[in-house]
Amino acid sequence: MLHRLASLLFELSKSYCGVLGHEVNSKMAASTLRIALIQMRVGEVKAENVARAVQLIKEAAGGGAQLIALPECFNSPYGTSFFPKYAEEIPGESTDALRDAAKKFGVFVLGGSVPERSGDQLFNTCTVWGPQGNMIAKHRKMHLFDINVPGGIVFRESDCLSPGNGLTIFELPHCKIGVGICYDMRFAELAQLYTNLGCKVLLYPGAFNMTTGPAHWNLLQRCRAVDNQVYVGTISPARDPNGSYVAWGHSSVVSPWGEVVSTCEDEEAIVYADLDMDYVEKVRRMIPVHNQKRKDIYEVISKQLKN
Amino acid sequence: MLHRLASLLFELSKSYCGVLGHEVNSKMAASTLRIALIQMRVGEVKAENVARAVQLIKEAAGGGAQLIALPECFNSPYGTSFFPKYAEEIPGESTDALRDAAKKFGVFVLGGSVPERSGDQLFNTCTVWGPQGNMIAKHRKMHLFDINVPGGIVFRESDCLSPGNGLTIFELPHCKIGVGICYDMRFAELAQLYTNLGCKVLLYPGAFNMTTGPAHWNLLQRCRAVDNQVYVGTISPARDPNGSYVAWGHSSVVSPWGEVVSTCEDEEAIVYADLDMDYVEKVRRMIPVHNQKRKDIYEVISKQLKN
Repeated sequence: MLHRLASLLFELSKSYCGVLGHEVNSKMAASTLRIALIQMRVGEVKAENVARAVQLIKEAAGGGAQLIALPECFNSPYGTSFFPKYAEEIPGESTDALRDAAKKFGVFVLGGSVPERSGDQLFNTCTVWGPQGNMIAKHRKMHLFDINVPGGIVFRESDCLSPGNGLTIFELPHCKIGVGICYDMRFAELAQLYTNLGCKVLLYPGAFNMTTGPAHWNLLQRCRAVDNQVYVGTISPARDPNGSYVAWGHSSVVSPWGEVVSTCEDEEAIVYADLDMDYVEKVRRMIPVHNQKRKDIYEVISKQLKN
Repeated sequence: MLHRLASLLFELSKSYCGVLGHEVNSKMAASTLRIALIQMRVGEVKAENVARAVQLIKEAAGGGAQLIALPECFNSPYGTSFFPKYAEEIPGESTDALRDAAKKFGVFVLGGSVPERSGDQLFNTCTVWGPQGNMIAKHRKMHLFDINVPGGIVFRESDCLSPGNGLTIFELPHCKIGVGICYDMRFAELAQLYTNLGCKVLLYPGAFNMTTGPAHWNLLQRCRAVDNQVYVGTISPARDPNGSYVAWGHSSVVSPWGEVVSTCEDEEAIVYADLDMDYVEKVRRMIPVHNQKRKDIYEVISKQLKN
């Protein structure tokens, strides 16, 4: 109830002053955002996946989380053979459930991703919902996962999906947040642009596998965090060793200093972290790389088609 | 002698076909470059530092290294109070010694850095020497190390030094190599541009300290390697716990897959590694991020003033 009251207050006031954080948990500074990463089991029954997501959102809201993030493909097994079958338009049954959960529990919900049908095309799409039940952002995976590691993993998302064509930022009272989906994390430029545009948090729902996971999941996350001096959260499905695609798990939050501040193994888990925006500023004062970029010599530029 | 012969062959033929590697070590594929990182002790007597560097270059050449890299400030303690006293013009006594060593031992020498005097200005400068005694590159540190970590480290290179204004790439028979000095490694854009310009190896002489070293030295190196799918070498002075600036050490080579392939602790050491250009290509085929960049949406652009 406090959550909903606080959210309403925020929505009404549009003050962007951190009131939400203060109301939700009086022990927490207004500059602190409590997030929860839902490393959930995903099975073959879509309705069960969606119900499980809602149940875990409820649990995380009860744990004081203000922003709750689901993994990539939370309503569908991950795989090109599944995407057409599980795809929905947006809005659709899965994203309606996210909308309702955000509203009911008075939280922001970052809906990992769902296979999205739009006309003749399919996308891998993340929706973000506010506590009023309003969709505040939609990100379509920009970089499709086409890799070929002999003896490891071969996958071609582009056989089935179309890529998104733009950056996606949403704003909470505490900060701006940039969104990428899984393979998007390999592309440093996206994170650099988000940072240049004022983000202090980046969130990547993703499902690395048993080859790329141990090699790169944590490393890439820490790269993005330390290079950009932002908090970075990664949200994986729990591992199903019998699934056709075996996810690495290890959903984590990394600080702008590059430290892993909260993590888990491969089983179903909720990972909580309190993101301190004052700490972001402190790190940026200590090692002021943002002011020391040689913009006379190089620059990362955006040629964004659409948001 | 074989080294010199091979180098001469290369210089005469200008064939850039990998003959050098083949001649030096018949067991080594032409696509393989043996490098040695000299993690040397640096004291207060310049002549002793230079003599020690030459001695270690000799040793590394004897170990089959074709490219031998020294640490940042190999001829001078690291510190703004030392730079004016130890600074030399280029050419000068320290870089003359590198030139002579490269020629005598038939190797390429990346001369870490020296405080360089040029007119009224001082720079932190890396010179690179070919086996003919020719200077093939000169890099002036582009990003000056101005940081303020309370209780950790406070340093302001810009009190004393001027920054360089350009990228520096040199070419061996095996590959192009991009150069940065220490703090330059924090700026991902530099590494991205080097990669876009065709480099497969990046080398960073550097002297991280006891605060930034454990936090970021290895992490940043692995970031640059995995994001750009290049080999990255870092070359630190050995640690002197009684020095006014205590270096972290841990000179290392990281592969384009992000693995540490060769490293050391904090004491004086020579770190050897065989860099396999076929492996660079293999990693780039497996995870083809270079071809998957969304250049329609973002790009890292160069506005280089000079090389």
